[in-house]
Amino acid sequence: MDDDLWLVEDERDNMKVSYRIKEVLFAESSDFQHVMILDSYDFGRMLVLDGVVQTTSMDGHIYNEMLAHVPLAIHPAPERVLVVGGGNCGAAREVAKYDEVREIDVIEIDELVVSACREHLSAVSGNLSDTRVNFIHADGVEFVKSKKNRYDVVMVDSSDPAGPSARLFEHAFYRDIYDALRVDGLVVRQSQSPLFHREDMCRIVRHFEQIFPITRVYGATIPTYPGAFWSFTLGSKKHRDPAHRVDLATKYVDGAVLRSCFDLPPFLRIPPNRPEPLRRGGDHRRTRSAAGQDSL
Amino acid sequence: MDDDLWLVEDERDNMKVSYRIKEVLFAESSDFQHVMILDSYDFGRMLVLDGVVQTTSMDGHIYNEMLAHVPLAIHPAPERVLVVGGGNCGAAREVAKYDEVREIDVIEIDELVVSACREHLSAVSGNLSDTRVNFIHADGVEFVKSKKNRYDVVMVDSSDPAGPSARLFEHAFYRDIYDALRVDGLVVRQSQSPLFHREDMCRIVRHFEQIFPITRVYGATIPTYPGAFWSFTLGSKKHRDPAHRVDLATKYVDGAVLRSCFDLPPFLRIPPNRPEPLRRGGDHRRTRSAAGQDSL
Repeated sequence: MDDDLWLVEDERDNMKVSYRIKEVLFAESSDFQHVMILDSYDFGRMLVLDGVVQTTSMDGHIYNEMLAHVPLAIHPAPERVLVVGGGNCGAAREVAKYDEVREIDVIEIDELVVSACREHLSAVSGNLSDTRVNFIHADGVEFVKSKKNRYDVVMVDSSDPAGPSARLFEHAFYRDIYDALRVDGLVVRQSQSPLFHREDMCRIVRHFEQIFPITRVYGATIPTYPGAFWSFTLGSKKHRDPAHRVDLATKYVDGAVLRSCFDLPPFLRIPPNRPEPLRRGGDHRRTRSAAGQDSL
Repeated sequence: MDDDLWLVEDERDNMKVSYRIKEVLFAESSDFQHVMILDSYDFGRMLVLDGVVQTTSMDGHIYNEMLAHVPLAIHPAPERVLVVGGGNCGAAREVAKYDEVREIDVIEIDELVVSACREHLSAVSGNLSDTRVNFIHADGVEFVKSKKNRYDVVMVDSSDPAGPSARLFEHAFYRDIYDALRVDGLVVRQSQSPLFHREDMCRIVRHFEQIFPITRVYGATIPTYPGAFWSFTLGSKKHRDPAHRVDLATKYVDGAVLRSCFDLPPFLRIPPNRPEPLRRGGDHRRTRSAAGQDSL
């Protein structure tokens, strides 16, 4: 039919995905980006930022559950949680399922994303209203810099490392997160596709390894993300393994997923970061650190 | 660029995927379908049948390893293996990694697929040449009907349940496979997407449950298949669990994948097939059987 409506995602050089759309529910520009909520045939309602699908009713829960429940199963007593980004409210919604959490700060620069998702994307946002959730519409990098020894868990829920999100992928930002965490705190971030953004993923892992005593990568399948395999990287000051079961109402995460998500298939694993051999007259520490950051 | 070459997969109603193509390596029509091998930017070389991507250099190994190694890890001593379909040769290539297998029959109706993949898609086919492999270019349904008590493992590697493959999804075909299997044999088949072809998957599971004492579903992530989650269904006369490790050269399957592949996330699981309540004057067996086949 000629009057069909299609969203054509063509930000990638070598692949385009076109989604047939039932209805445009919301379309407006903020100071930061163009924000749309579309109702699609195959994936239900979707949040589209600058023409790129961010999350959908069909699989948004996979991403948000994996971002939230894995660190919250590892931390034995999370009280204060910070979500950096997360304008679709899905991560905060999952965190709010934990009675022991007393405070959920969501630092999302773009208020329009939050209001659009709360109104039009309830499958993901759950129309989130919980008195423990504080929305702060400001710059995440500056916000984190101002906090010391405050959070038990930090979740970085950003879009791709381009434009306004680029600084959320820098070493200095992770360093500030370390300082914002309590003595046994941990951070998790989405770390892109292990197939199509392998260098981005490796760079995140190397940064975390330089800062945190414990770094772990886990994966999930998210159909609407390029390549479907998606990675998350966790940096922890103390706790390493899931300490308790997820017996909350979830659609994707359960005990089996918690056990198996750290077992990436062999072809997606990152090789261990071996120290460079000592060079005559060289500074071993510096050599190793530079290798860790650049030669992935 | 206007002279870019794109393959536009538009066989689905509500989604199109377009792949940028470097080169058309092979394009010819057989008696059964149009066969192409294309070299793509993001997924490497791909087999395309009637305009639909079937397997690629990037992720063909995931599908073929999951189809082959899971049943071969469950059967304690597989000697005779039958692959129905499997023209890309990848499944047979994986089976040939087992020294104890003495005979590998591949019944693929379309010879052109086999020759094109052996010549132009070696990342998947491995240019397979192993004296234990017998290629038979004939109808799989008729072939299976003619075999009794012969195979330890049967793998059904067919395209979608339409056109010539439709009969490979029927109850009668699975019944004939049961008879073609030895007393402790097992069969596995790809059983479509648990997201987008949920009814197809459930129908396969119900058929297997009616025929085999043991039916199990397992999953894998295959980026180029719609929805990326993909299911496999296994019907077994006796053996249930992986009996030995996969310590062969594999890129996707390892011990962790073997353990976790049976743990489908909750939202993808099939509810157990409960018997219908007895109806007054009704025939319980018939009622239950009909429900199993039709009302999924």
